[in-house]
Amino acid sequence: MVIQETFEVATRGRGTHDLTREIQQRVAASGIRTGIAQLFVHHTSASLMLCENADPDVRADLERFMSRLVPDGDPLFAHDAEGPDDMPAHVRTLLTDSSLSLPISGGRCALGTWQGIYLWEHRTRGHRRRLTLTLIGE
Amino acid sequence: MVIQETFEVATRGRGTHDLTREIQQRVAASGIRTGIAQLFVHHTSASLMLCENADPDVRADLERFMSRLVPDGDPLFAHDAEGPDDMPAHVRTLLTDSSLSLPISGGRCALGTWQGIYLWEHRTRGHRRRLTLTLIGE
Amino acid sequence: MVIQETFEVATRGRGTHDLTREIQQRVAASGIRTGIAQLFVHHTSASLMLCENADPDVRADLERFMSRLVPDGDPLFAHDAEGPDDMPAHVRTLLTDSSLSLPISGGRCALGTWQGIYLWEHRTRGHRRRLTLTLIGE
Repeated sequence: MVIQETFEVATRGRGTHDLTREIQQRVAASGIRTGIAQLFVHHTSASLMLCENADPDVRADLERFMSRLVPDGDPLFAHDAEGPDDMPAHVRTLLTDSSLSLPISGGRCALGTWQGIYLWEHRTRGHRRRLTLTLIGE
Repeated sequence: MVIQETFEVATRGRGTHDLTREIQQRVAASGIRTGIAQLFVHHTSASLMLCENADPDVRADLERFMSRLVPDGDPLFAHDAEGPDDMPAHVRTLLTDSSLSLPISGGRCALGTWQGIYLWEHRTRGHRRRLTLTLIGE
Repeated sequence: MVIQETFEVATRGRGTHDLTREIQQRVAASGIRTGIAQLFVHHTSASLMLCENADPDVRADLERFMSRLVPDGDPLFAHDAEGPDDMPAHVRTLLTDSSLSLPISGGRCALGTWQGIYLWEHRTRGHRRRLTLTLIGE
């Protein structure tokens, strides 16, 4: 059994967007009880991550860590066609994930207690981001 | 054909734990000859990696690299509820993988000669870590 | 339906190799219309990435970023059996991906407009790199 859905998320600039509830609802509605969920983002300047879901400081700390590791406007970068956050957005995407692969058990994504699913916008301005969820199982 | 198993691994504090043999045995026992294996860890402070399996210095070097890149007790981090290794464990997990997706060929994970499957505990103290292996194929 | 193919790519030393056309041709030829494509590289010193496909400066910038983050010959590393680029190649592989998981829609990998599939050779000398493409769907 293969179920595939494409949808969009409007981001509000750099930062994280919690997708956990939406993904769980889509998995539950699919009728698949056991299998694999693949979530994919069709962009190279926004990415996906699993992250601690209880303390918002964790996501703020991840943002600070990434901003220090990959500074906007770094003179190392030649590619700045869309501004000082252009190339850092590509590097951040590379260091995180364009695709999450999750187990489906009992008709839902079998996340750990503290795992949430987040879309991470790396550009300073908001964008519409397209995602595809593909579910395979029985 | 979908096979799914959940199991636990007890870690002994920060460092790597070789899962190659256990995963290969589970894949062989499943009866699936060709397909995809997904290994998932249900935590945000331990992760999975494929790594060179011959020289233990490689894993020691990875540990040193991560300790330098993401120092314990870094004042950058606000989230330190569980100690100086708390937030670094989340960052290390982000930079590595919560999920490995591997090909199954001839009834086993088709790893390269030098590829081993490792669980990487990022907290300084040992934990019980829950993993789910999902196999899809024929 | 499960289709699996193994093939080799000859790299010409450190740098990226565009696999997009080859992967799309293999997916189209498989007859699978909707599902999941898993591309896997059987090595720990070369990796896979999705990357912006329009401006070659982006890949040059990624190379410069990685060379700065993980310098060849870094005295931090004990493992240098194959030279100053040996251990950095393992770290770069860890920080990027050994496996890409992509949606198949309408008989092709549903990449975003600016997403290309690249093999990244991390050793300074060229190698023959083995890859396995596994397609599951209907």
